[in-house]
Amino acid sequence: MKRRIALIGFGTVGQGFCEILLQKEQLLNEKYGFEAEIVAISDTLKGSISCKKGLDIQQCIDLVNNGQKLDEYKCEHGNCECGRDWDSLATIQNSNADIICELAYTDVKTGQPAITHCKTAFKNGKHIVTSNKGPAALQYSELKKLAEKNKVKFMIEGTVMSGSPVINLAEGPLAGCTISAIKGILNGTTNYMLTEMEKGMGYAEVLKKAQELGYAEADPTGDVEGFDAMAKVIILANVLMDVPLGAGAVHREGITKITSEMIESAKNENTRWKLISTIEKTENGIAASVKPEKLALTDPLANIMGATNALTFSTDLLGDVTIVGAGAGKLETGFSILTDILAIHRQIKN
Amino acid sequence: MKRRIALIGFGTVGQGFCEILLQKEQLLNEKYGFEAEIVAISDTLKGSISCKKGLDIQQCIDLVNNGQKLDEYKCEHGNCECGRDWDSLATIQNSNADIICELAYTDVKTGQPAITHCKTAFKNGKHIVTSNKGPAALQYSELKKLAEKNKVKFMIEGTVMSGSPVINLAEGPLAGCTISAIKGILNGTTNYMLTEMEKGMGYAEVLKKAQELGYAEADPTGDVEGFDAMAKVIILANVLMDVPLGAGAVHREGITKITSEMIESAKNENTRWKLISTIEKTENGIAASVKPEKLALTDPLANIMGATNALTFSTDLLGDVTIVGAGAGKLETGFSILTDILAIHRQIKN
Repeated sequence: MKRRIALIGFGTVGQGFCEILLQKEQLLNEKYGFEAEIVAISDTLKGSISCKKGLDIQQCIDLVNNGQKLDEYKCEHGNCECGRDWDSLATIQNSNADIICELAYTDVKTGQPAITHCKTAFKNGKHIVTSNKGPAALQYSELKKLAEKNKVKFMIEGTVMSGSPVINLAEGPLAGCTISAIKGILNGTTNYMLTEMEKGMGYAEVLKKAQELGYAEADPTGDVEGFDAMAKVIILANVLMDVPLGAGAVHREGITKITSEMIESAKNENTRWKLISTIEKTENGIAASVKPEKLALTDPLANIMGATNALTFSTDLLGDVTIVGAGAGKLETGFSILTDILAIHRQIKN
Repeated sequence: MKRRIALIGFGTVGQGFCEILLQKEQLLNEKYGFEAEIVAISDTLKGSISCKKGLDIQQCIDLVNNGQKLDEYKCEHGNCECGRDWDSLATIQNSNADIICELAYTDVKTGQPAITHCKTAFKNGKHIVTSNKGPAALQYSELKKLAEKNKVKFMIEGTVMSGSPVINLAEGPLAGCTISAIKGILNGTTNYMLTEMEKGMGYAEVLKKAQELGYAEADPTGDVEGFDAMAKVIILANVLMDVPLGAGAVHREGITKITSEMIESAKNENTRWKLISTIEKTENGIAASVKPEKLALTDPLANIMGATNALTFSTDLLGDVTIVGAGAGKLETGFSILTDILAIHRQIKN
């Protein structure tokens, strides 16, 4: 059977996902019996298009690459009554998609408009796949319950470490293990900055370079003050440790007070500063933090360099299991969408 | 529904698996709707017992812990016609198990008796779950085809890195990625020995310590000459890269020529000797090797110490993904059996 998919947002992640679908069409069909059809795309800037018979993905990519609007899409199916000018909610409600990929912009303060997108999808019996941290960080358990009530899935692999397996790893191959602690490097931008500072550059200079490379945003607060990592800590606690952690319960410190002198002196002690995210079950519940820590060079996390992410699960049956991989990127985050859709494909046969 | 399981072999792995089943019964039922019943155990030394209504697992564990035979098992079900004295083949054929856990001894030269156990199970329409490297290293594609023909599964997570997710990771959360290379530390014994040698002990002394700790066997050839790692390389090439690699195609070198002087001199160069397993797609097919390599300390594999294992997949969509975890242990390998059975439970509903 064909999976019918709508994309809410057609930026880097959505385009990366579409490129993968085009490139892997045959392999996905042969190996996993998976066929996908993009039946709608709606983007606040790039316009919108919907066709119940399926869109020509390459034409959509070409249009936006040429700076044209999706509304200019030429449909080759006859009498298909393509929808144009549908906003995100109309697309979720009116398109014939079974799976909604929520790829609109992230706002971790309000979670909007993504939370409304999720709720609308669930109420209409449609699965949500998203790399947007807002909904999961702010309303995970409420959304999860609403999804379950409507017998659909709320899939969020891309919210932590892009497509590198974290949530599907814990819920799939690690199923049966109880996780007592999670510790990791969950923000690539700050890890890149600390890596570069060790090469001799000062904080301000490194931040500028990170902004030029697109790692850090014009307002870098989300990364350097630890808000991005904190949102991921909240998601992991909720999803993998069943703890309804709020932002107020996470001790958060960024890297803005780390100086070149501190980095140099750590080096002389065979240690290294890293922005470490931690969630630990304690006698009194849970302790969660994001803060710079000086690790011995023998610590596996001390050797994660550049924009790479890493995460260690402490489990009862397997001891420590660590996964190291990309934390961002067009194909990497595009793949997070595919991996969640394939998980739905495996679990739900129609 | 209840999954009915037979254990061929009741040593460390089988007992570890049973302990996990006892400990996790409620969690597995509540979270995954999973219920298991051990309906038969057959061990060449510890005897055999089979009951179609399900065995009391704790009683079986207690019997072998007390040095008694399984034949002395007291069944509390009436008129159940418990089978006693069944050998492995009789157990596979006559028990009412749906899943056969092949946990007999490993012989990577002939693969027997495990290969016969697998074939018998498949021909009787029963799944095989095993941590035994023999069948997969010697006859993977033949066995896989026979399993598929009989619509059952051939599950082998425990053959590489015990229960740490490798095969289920690649076939689950990494599905859709194409793996172009695999590189890792796949033998815990030799990694432990190299770690200890760095602390100042000589090769002979370290080997003796590894034998005392149960890491190395009385005849340590399988580990120190790289045969164990080679079997894993062959399994990974067959399962994850679709390459029917034979032992002759793997360049194999052990650690027996590594001296304390070499370890010391590597240290002074900020490098470290590791026994590295590699499989790489090349223009001419595939290159596979197990050999000592001197890694820069900045290489993530250089910092994997002690008996820990690690494996890096080079993929087209996610770049490098590394998993670090236990390579052996009672619960760790016991868990490999559970994780494969849960995978069957998810995929096959009746």
